[in-house]
Amino acid sequence: MHGTEMRKLPGFVGGTLDRVDHIRTNAALLAESFANPAARLLLLDGLDPVEADGHLLLEPLPHDARIEDHVLLGIDPAGRPIFARLIADLGPGLFPTPRSRAIVDLVPAEEVGLYGTARSLVHWHARHRFCSVCGAATESVKAGWSRKCGECGAEHFPRTDPVVIMLAEHRGRVLLGRQHSWPAGRYSALAGFVEPGETIEEAVARELHEEAGVRVHDVRYVMSQPWPFPSSLMIACFAEADDEALTLDPTEIEDAFWCDADGVRAALAGDPDAPFLPPPPMAVAWHLLDRWLATVVPADASA
Amino acid sequence: MHGTEMRKLPGFVGGTLDRVDHIRTNAALLAESFANPAARLLLLDGLDPVEADGHLLLEPLPHDARIEDHVLLGIDPAGRPIFARLIADLGPGLFPTPRSRAIVDLVPAEEVGLYGTARSLVHWHARHRFCSVCGAATESVKAGWSRKCGECGAEHFPRTDPVVIMLAEHRGRVLLGRQHSWPAGRYSALAGFVEPGETIEEAVARELHEEAGVRVHDVRYVMSQPWPFPSSLMIACFAEADDEALTLDPTEIEDAFWCDADGVRAALAGDPDAPFLPPPPMAVAWHLLDRWLATVVPADASA
Repeated sequence: MHGTEMRKLPGFVGGTLDRVDHIRTNAALLAESFANPAARLLLLDGLDPVEADGHLLLEPLPHDARIEDHVLLGIDPAGRPIFARLIADLGPGLFPTPRSRAIVDLVPAEEVGLYGTARSLVHWHARHRFCSVCGAATESVKAGWSRKCGECGAEHFPRTDPVVIMLAEHRGRVLLGRQHSWPAGRYSALAGFVEPGETIEEAVARELHEEAGVRVHDVRYVMSQPWPFPSSLMIACFAEADDEALTLDPTEIEDAFWCDADGVRAALAGDPDAPFLPPPPMAVAWHLLDRWLATVVPADASA
Repeated sequence: MHGTEMRKLPGFVGGTLDRVDHIRTNAALLAESFANPAARLLLLDGLDPVEADGHLLLEPLPHDARIEDHVLLGIDPAGRPIFARLIADLGPGLFPTPRSRAIVDLVPAEEVGLYGTARSLVHWHARHRFCSVCGAATESVKAGWSRKCGECGAEHFPRTDPVVIMLAEHRGRVLLGRQHSWPAGRYSALAGFVEPGETIEEAVARELHEEAGVRVHDVRYVMSQPWPFPSSLMIACFAEADDEALTLDPTEIEDAFWCDADGVRAALAGDPDAPFLPPPPMAVAWHLLDRWLATVVPADASA
């Protein structure tokens, strides 16, 4: 278990690979990395991680492995080039499995970061085998960091989808909501994709208004997290609400309420009498709540 | 001219449309918006803006217009549904033209924001007419906010590509670099795409090391900007450099140097003797430099 680490950083943060951008586009250096006896293949089962004895499984590259079927994730601190194998068919592995989420509790943070990078890239390749411009087949190039169309020549790059996740606050309370599909009792920060043509701050304000009818000002960035299901960049923020009136969008939000610091503190501490069940510590929302607690005046100091 | 506005906000920031997410997925409400006599079509020439008398041209929808050929950008503050027409072929309009960049000087900020949103979406549709999963044709759905494959059913959403752009600082100086293709004398903040599996802070550190050999700590988010060429989200940051040693990547950076506050101040003021030509005020880099100046001790106070 790596519980202490988990609480310091959200899941998937803290990868330690040197991404060696200069090797990706240099065929000679890439071939050298692939032929390096120290090179390792990060084993995946579909998109799921494979773990043993508290570590992800890394194996020597098979003798018949072809470089074009792999992505070079980077060079690890021990100097080993780390690759992942591309797959054509995701099968049922399109969605996150309990196994892929549980990995954050089983291996060190830097390995969770490595898995997240690999999962996003392998997923992206499997879903981009054809050219969105002309429909022809594409092939992996640049050590798996882009795909090129054999017909029209268009080059396609891996997606990273920015998502805002935010706590609206008002007079010492924060807005928490829950979706229909979540475990009973769980509440968390609201979230949504950043759309073309808007800033992070505009996206935060739009989502809070769309989902909860809350108008905000003074949006402040707090932290970010890669979320490999399939390839989001979570951008966590605070925002000041104008007031506490709620108008929920029932298609997005099943319920929402304003929670005070004592309630948030009890929830994060795992108190069975807490007013809600928090998101897991692998989620950036847990850390956003924890940071918010650090900003509010302690209950005894405000007496 | 809208010079004063330009300096308050980077270009493409400040759109005022209500994006009416609930209308996109409601066929009846969407048809009502399209049939609304107040509805307007934002005219584009390919991907270029069309301006007259200091405003973008908005016209009534043609009688033979079909809803499936349009994207609903949103409802403007006057209650008018604003649409843009999708085009199949971008022709030579794939890259930003001088005309598309000049629009920030010609129309009010909220219209620049509207144009940026329209440009990103129209570009995305034209480049995603086929399914990246199976190669079959896709069609626009949800009022132009997604495309669906007629064959495998995959749904595809508009891209927004997060880019970090940052000033490394060290003892009262900031790192400025220039690319080969830039106008003579221009220097700006370094920048690069956020990759799958990394945080904003990790991307800032990686890019500064890759491009300039600079190691940094204490990365701080400053502001963000949508950049519609074709659909980036610029995420502007400061970072503290460990030292001032530079190792430039010649494929990315032609030259770089550490500039003090007096030099940055002179450049932003347009002083012909300034040590560099700054980016234009439409760029978030201009505002990042301006914000940095506000954080440093004035030259006379440090004497």
